[in-house]
Order: sequence, then C-alpha cells, then structure tokens
Amino acid sequence: MVLVVRTDLNMGKGKIAAQCAHAAVGAFEKAQRKDPEGLKNWQMTGQAKVAVKTDSLDEIKQIVDNAKKLGIITSLIRDAGRTQIAPNTVTVLGIGPAPKDVIDKVTGHLKLL
Amino acid sequence: MVLVVRTDLNMGKGKIAAQCAHAAVGAFEKAQRKDPEGLKNWQMTGQAKVAVKTDSLDEIKQIVDNAKKLGIITSLIRDAGRTQIAPNTVTVLGIGPAPKDVIDKVTGHLKLL
Repeated sequence: MVLVVRTDLNMGKGKIAAQCAHAAVGAFEKAQRKDPEGLKNWQMTGQAKVAVKTDSLDEIKQIVDNAKKLGIITSLIRDAGRTQIAPNTVTVLGIGPAPKDVIDKVTGHLKLL
Repeated sequence: MVLVVRTDLNMGKGKIAAQCAHAAVGAFEKAQRKDPEGLKNWQMTGQAKVAVKTDSLDEIKQIVDNAKKLGIITSLIRDAGRTQIAPNTVTVLGIGPAPKDVIDKVTGHLKLL
C-alpha cells in the first residue's frame, strides 16, 4: 500500500499521520469488499505501507486515473477542514494493497516522504 | 481513535505516517472483530483520528494497561526494523475507536503531535 501525501499544503506531521491513517483504513475497507484475496496476500506478507510525496494535486488526479485503469484500489482523502487547511482539500491518496510491481506502475516515480 | 507516536525515536515524517497507518488499520481490524457496533458509531460520526506524542516507552506501556482495564481496543505497532530504527521497536500505539470521553481517560493528558 502506498500513501501519496501532498507536500504543497504544509501540513504538520501529526496532520499527515492522521490523514495517512484515514487513507490506509479507507483502502483497507475497499479491499475487504473488492479484493479480499489480494488483501489476504498483502496481510500475510507484512502488509507494507510506504509514504511518498507529491507537490501537485494534478499529479494525484493523474495517479487516480492510472490506478483505476489498472484496477488498483484507490482511497482519496479530503479533509473536513476544521484545522490547518481549507475544507474539502485533497490531502492524501491511498493506493492498493496490490503487489509491488503493480503499484510501482502508478507511484514508482515518486520519492519517499 | 488516537495514535500515540513515540518522539524519542526521531522517526522521519514518512516513517511516522506509515507506522500510524499500521496502527489505524490494526485497531480497525480489532474493532471489526470485538466491537462492530462501536466501530459503526465511529464511522458514522466522522471516524476521527488524532495523532499525539510521547517520549517514553514506559508511558506507552502504562497507556496500554489503562486502556485494557477500561476495555478499550489497543493496537501496538512494533517495527520490523529494516529502516531507521532497531528491529522490534515499539513505534506507535493505536487506541480505540471509542467515544472521546472514554479515550480521553487514557490519552487526554498527551499533547498533539
């Protein structure tokens, strides 16, 4: 599972952590419904989670499109905006769980957060 | 849900984000098994997630004990130690989901990360 975090919002690390937790739980729930077998494989192999960064909302939208074309689960988090940032702002995108080589097709170019 | 993050390990923000994601998914899974009704309430009320900090492993252990006495779900994350920190190090503790006044009994004294 990859968590794509927007760095252009200047979120604090606690905010980033909470938003990534939202994305991970959201992706997990979707996987339970849509890909229970893939989820089980991921859980049995250490359920890797990696946070990477982008400074562009457009790039996040592009990644969502690419992931959907490949049938990879996405979980896009919008913040309620009660703290730090404006309401309804996209903060983090969760991708997967999926095998590393599949996920790398859509997020392999991004650097670690 | 509260994510208690150790600050004495000097983890980078990407590492913190991934560890919090582990804790959130772990707590979510436990809640599905042990408290599905509480989980549903939490999901329907915005599924709040808050990251707080401690600089003490002993404090994390104390919080686990207190939470267990109150019947609150805990999800203790130990890092595999492939990056940044030693294997099997406790990094983050997930608490809940539970109503705010209940969670505050065990983590209300901690500051936001």
